[in-house]
Amino acid sequence: MMIRKHYTDVEKKAVTQYGSKGTSIRVLVSDEDGAPNFVLRRFEIEPDGIIGIHDHIQEHEIYILSGKGEVFNDVEIIEINENDVLYVPPNEPHGYRNIGKKNLIFLCTIPLLE
Amino acid sequence: MMIRKHYTDVEKKAVTQYGSKGTSIRVLVSDEDGAPNFVLRRFEIEPDGIIGIHDHIQEHEIYILSGKGEVFNDVEIIEINENDVLYVPPNEPHGYRNIGKKNLIFLCTIPLLE
Repeated sequence: MMIRKHYTDVEKKAVTQYGSKGTSIRVLVSDEDGAPNFVLRRFEIEPDGIIGIHDHIQEHEIYILSGKGEVFNDVEIIEINENDVLYVPPNEPHGYRNIGKKNLIFLCTIPLLE
Repeated sequence: MMIRKHYTDVEKKAVTQYGSKGTSIRVLVSDEDGAPNFVLRRFEIEPDGIIGIHDHIQEHEIYILSGKGEVFNDVEIIEINENDVLYVPPNEPHGYRNIGKKNLIFLCTIPLLE
């Protein structure tokens, strides 16, 4: 059977790792729903909020729903805006910050690795 | 290196399989970008447009960006609206139709299976 939810049906949790602030995550679809391969998450970063630089073996495929921000590491800064798409390769250091006046909201899919 | 695009940077193609009409797809991130595990696509279905029922071994994780529609098969019809999330399990028959007055737009991620 298919599963439909509204994103607000999912509990919002604070993101506190990597020196992050003003950031929350909702895990929209995951292995708890029976999904075998990847996890769909929705992030909200408040104005002046940040997710600190980190890296991991999993790649990200990201779609910006609203707001204005930057994704950054020690060698580059990329501006991201509504309806932009972002691919973050495996092991690429990356952080995010909101540089706008409203919440920076994006979807981020990550693989479920064994 | 990270890759950023605007969704309109990607060519829009008509979806014609399964008796579909009024439907287009943009493949936003795929193996052509180096992505190893899954593909992020963006669909637009015009008012009265449809993607006919079909099935496949790959699951879908879907986020509705705008519009009002239905996902359906021979046993159920589920209404979908902006900011809804949908999980379509492997091998589940599914079709989509726009039942609103503006375009039904959604993101749909599908695994890259070997």
